[in-house]
Amino acid sequence: MKIAVFNENQVGVINGDNVVDITELTGWNKEEPQRSLVQLMKNFNDLKPKIEEGLATCPSYPVNDVALRAPVPNPSKIVAAPINYILHKEEMNTALTVDRLGFFLKSPSSIIGPNDTVLLPFKDRRVDHEAEIAFVIGKEAKDVKAEDAADYIFGYLALMDITVRGKEDRPWRKSFDTFTPIGPWIVTNDEVEDPNKLQMNLWVNEEIRQSANTSDLIYDCYKFLEAASSVMTLLPGDIVTTGTPEGVAPIVQGDTVRIHIERIGEFSVSVDYKPGI
Amino acid sequence: MKIAVFNENQVGVINGDNVVDITELTGWNKEEPQRSLVQLMKNFNDLKPKIEEGLATCPSYPVNDVALRAPVPNPSKIVAAPINYILHKEEMNTALTVDRLGFFLKSPSSIIGPNDTVLLPFKDRRVDHEAEIAFVIGKEAKDVKAEDAADYIFGYLALMDITVRGKEDRPWRKSFDTFTPIGPWIVTNDEVEDPNKLQMNLWVNEEIRQSANTSDLIYDCYKFLEAASSVMTLLPGDIVTTGTPEGVAPIVQGDTVRIHIERIGEFSVSVDYKPGI
Repeated sequence: MKIAVFNENQVGVINGDNVVDITELTGWNKEEPQRSLVQLMKNFNDLKPKIEEGLATCPSYPVNDVALRAPVPNPSKIVAAPINYILHKEEMNTALTVDRLGFFLKSPSSIIGPNDTVLLPFKDRRVDHEAEIAFVIGKEAKDVKAEDAADYIFGYLALMDITVRGKEDRPWRKSFDTFTPIGPWIVTNDEVEDPNKLQMNLWVNEEIRQSANTSDLIYDCYKFLEAASSVMTLLPGDIVTTGTPEGVAPIVQGDTVRIHIERIGEFSVSVDYKPGI
Repeated sequence: MKIAVFNENQVGVINGDNVVDITELTGWNKEEPQRSLVQLMKNFNDLKPKIEEGLATCPSYPVNDVALRAPVPNPSKIVAAPINYILHKEEMNTALTVDRLGFFLKSPSSIIGPNDTVLLPFKDRRVDHEAEIAFVIGKEAKDVKAEDAADYIFGYLALMDITVRGKEDRPWRKSFDTFTPIGPWIVTNDEVEDPNKLQMNLWVNEEIRQSANTSDLIYDCYKFLEAASSVMTLLPGDIVTTGTPEGVAPIVQGDTVRIHIERIGEFSVSVDYKPGI
């Protein structure tokens, strides 16, 4: 199932080219989309048959006619893997990879939706795109082993980890407002099958910049969940993002950046300057 | 005013040696203490006279008879300054300070209260205490200048930034569950007067380890708020912590760690191993 947040923070299920509005059906509160998402995930097994019935009866709109919002609006944290592909390690000219670096955190306030605009905070510093596969935690995870990790993942999404290059700590370089576009929706666990074997591409203005397979992850999705949950408790609704492959490069004002992940979907954001800089 | 969270997530005001329970008076919801705190801060000007009247009429208990909880239970982020005192820079043998490093983030799931226990996740790695003055954001702050920063700070608290030494990114080294003891309460802005001129001490088993004044901060509280809010939107209830002075040193199982900050107060936590390691 593909679960989208759209328009006035309604919740919908993707059905072919349409989004079916299940806001009323599921008791989703538009004023509190993150809390509603956590509730939906908690009750998902019970809700699933009801949602499937609702596909025929609930209001339905062409996906192209709605504004998709961030499908995880406000997680309690965004946990991110540094240097988790060998070829990215080489292009970054660094010695350390995820197994020695651990993880970093991005501010939840950096999240934007898949129709939004990345705002560059500087005119004189390099800002890069980073294409990543991310997932949303479905139930509290603490000291979870890789072999059990799939049980704790509700679903997957595409994420751009927009990044200022420089000497600052990663959370600073990656937490500017608008620096975490996510979307286009959450694809539930069962539809993804193997998240560690998915093709991922990123284009800037239709020129391909990143093209890799998640099979090249150093710590795959499950292993990274193990590593993160051995440090801290992951809570329902948290986002975990797994790091970017080779091909990172600058984005500039006027660019359109598009990410596509197999089985998950695609979205594109535009790039502009932050007003007033 | 000193605002404490205690026992079953009730809210209280410190009155001499007592804590006055203002849970009912203020409409605080014990099931959602963070949300209640944000609401309390929002309405504080209106609530203040009511609270002052309530000191004589609300239930009152000796502070020593209650269990103090984390006064900011679940912020949307913890923003932290790396290397923000010159003598700490020297002891860490590093070239970069806060002005080049920006900030890092700690996971909100690392928060514990001022009567809790820090759990060491390793037997073979050094874990240090770091004494810090922190503050809680009272209203949304974006691109705030240092000279206006005081308006965005609701109050101050003491914070221990417990830290594993090593090569991992700071968020990993500082986000283990139990690694952010905070307390003993929030002291509102008006009672602190100048947060950049306060004596701060930390003891391990009654031996003094850190003793410094916040006047030695490289980026003082206001300047650091300016720097952080130029990157990302700070939300009501977020914690900002300003970095530690010289004197950091290891803690081990069985230790008692006590922090005292002038005008704010003091608390102490015990240290044990994480079960099962």
